[in-house]
Amino acid sequence: MIIEEQGPRDGFQVEAIQIPTELKIKWIEDAVSAGVKRVQMSSFVHPKLVPQMADAEAVCAGVSKQSGVVYSGLVLNVKGVERAVKAGLTHVAISMSASDTHSRKNANKSLSEALVEFSEMAKIAKEAGLVVRAGIQCAFGCRYEGNISEEYVLELVKKHLDLGIDELSLADSTGMANPVQVKRIINQVVPLARNLPIFLHLHDTEGKGIANMLAAIDCGVNHFDTAFGGLGGCPFIKGATGNIATEDVVHCLEQMGYETHINNQKMIALAKEVEAFLGRKLPGKVKEVVSFD
Amino acid sequence: MIIEEQGPRDGFQVEAIQIPTELKIKWIEDAVSAGVKRVQMSSFVHPKLVPQMADAEAVCAGVSKQSGVVYSGLVLNVKGVERAVKAGLTHVAISMSASDTHSRKNANKSLSEALVEFSEMAKIAKEAGLVVRAGIQCAFGCRYEGNISEEYVLELVKKHLDLGIDELSLADSTGMANPVQVKRIINQVVPLARNLPIFLHLHDTEGKGIANMLAAIDCGVNHFDTAFGGLGGCPFIKGATGNIATEDVVHCLEQMGYETHINNQKMIALAKEVEAFLGRKLPGKVKEVVSFD
Repeated sequence: MIIEEQGPRDGFQVEAIQIPTELKIKWIEDAVSAGVKRVQMSSFVHPKLVPQMADAEAVCAGVSKQSGVVYSGLVLNVKGVERAVKAGLTHVAISMSASDTHSRKNANKSLSEALVEFSEMAKIAKEAGLVVRAGIQCAFGCRYEGNISEEYVLELVKKHLDLGIDELSLADSTGMANPVQVKRIINQVVPLARNLPIFLHLHDTEGKGIANMLAAIDCGVNHFDTAFGGLGGCPFIKGATGNIATEDVVHCLEQMGYETHINNQKMIALAKEVEAFLGRKLPGKVKEVVSFD
Repeated sequence: MIIEEQGPRDGFQVEAIQIPTELKIKWIEDAVSAGVKRVQMSSFVHPKLVPQMADAEAVCAGVSKQSGVVYSGLVLNVKGVERAVKAGLTHVAISMSASDTHSRKNANKSLSEALVEFSEMAKIAKEAGLVVRAGIQCAFGCRYEGNISEEYVLELVKKHLDLGIDELSLADSTGMANPVQVKRIINQVVPLARNLPIFLHLHDTEGKGIANMLAAIDCGVNHFDTAFGGLGGCPFIKGATGNIATEDVVHCLEQMGYETHINNQKMIALAKEVEAFLGRKLPGKVKEVVSFD
């Protein structure tokens, strides 16, 4: 199983306290030292909209890179891709929403405008030689619109694949997905994606995060986004809460016999360090009960 | 799917604030009015050990009984069964632990002593004409002992069935169970149980509660214990936290196409009322985000 650590981006983006760049760098390096092979380090969004991500370039430059590890950044528009390329990234996650309302709130674009921008982003990133992960936010439901058309999600998947992207990602940004729906959608995406990796990005807002992950595993998915401590949430989604917690996911997967190659003692220590800095209990659960003495 | 509401017992037993008997009665009636068809109203344990349950008789007497609803109580020893019979219950949950350490802490008995007591409990309850649910605590792991022998759990199941009990219950009291293990154990219990209902009692201590429920559903189980608000936890288990939340379970099951016949607006209102009384956020998740306006 492949875990992409998104704590530094999805996790930190909603935090009110400005986290020092040096600490972000240290925690990214700590996650890699625990065995994480993919990290989303930051997002190249407008610093006025998400001030916590204003140091994206500094974070990306500051992290000591280890071979065999994918260091990525999230981008939502052409300007972001240009910044990511300039920052020297070799991997980028371009992303758009399947919900018109969420797209307008999060990216200030209608769905059709977002799709045009998305094609442009993919083109620039591919021309610059980057590996491109294409993501669809709110793929399983929207807190403003309710149900999201599965046909539209599948249409977006096809359009993204036509752009020559390298990896697919479906995000349950709102935590509204359920295992039956996850299986139904993923089973339609798998044949389209052929051999490209499919990532599932899950939030535990309604308590179904781990169950949805296992439903996707049943369909052959083995790439998941997680955040240490269960941090996270989109600032532009009503009631958004954290990603599935890295250490909870690792604990569950290892118990079930899957290999993550992540040292969970180290991940739990990291989650507790972040928790201590932020000064409040983070939602991840196993850090409270699992003793590795 | 059949939900047994255990908030009034497993939920309240760990609460420090003494909850007025009248409120317990009201909340049990509210759960039934929301559509719950089974309630564990209290436990007949020593009031010095669990002071919150000292009003078991008063609660059981005070609840207005609706036809078609199973009103039960938990008992851990012969004295408890005698009290339950005297209180006029027609259904009782007798229970013992599969962990020697937990059994000594929770019931002051070794495993073999607990089994003798269990047989006696079953005998008295059956002779009094009660419907008997037999439960095994810590069936999936113990916070003190670690792994619990599956062979021993299956041996207990057989012994309990030999006593002529009417329903089986397996409890993941510690929240250590994982879906692979749940399937492995349940698949061995199902053929033993023949047509008797099998209940799964799950805690969300490690975030796997809902995933474990779905694993059991895959094996044909359709009876689950839950607690409103995600209340609960055994006072004699290190790091114990709440049951899977009734309203989260109902929400997830209904999304997946299963019928619960429970009005979740009412369950959420109940969870919020209990939360307001206790004066702290309860762990149930959907009450925070699901609007039924």
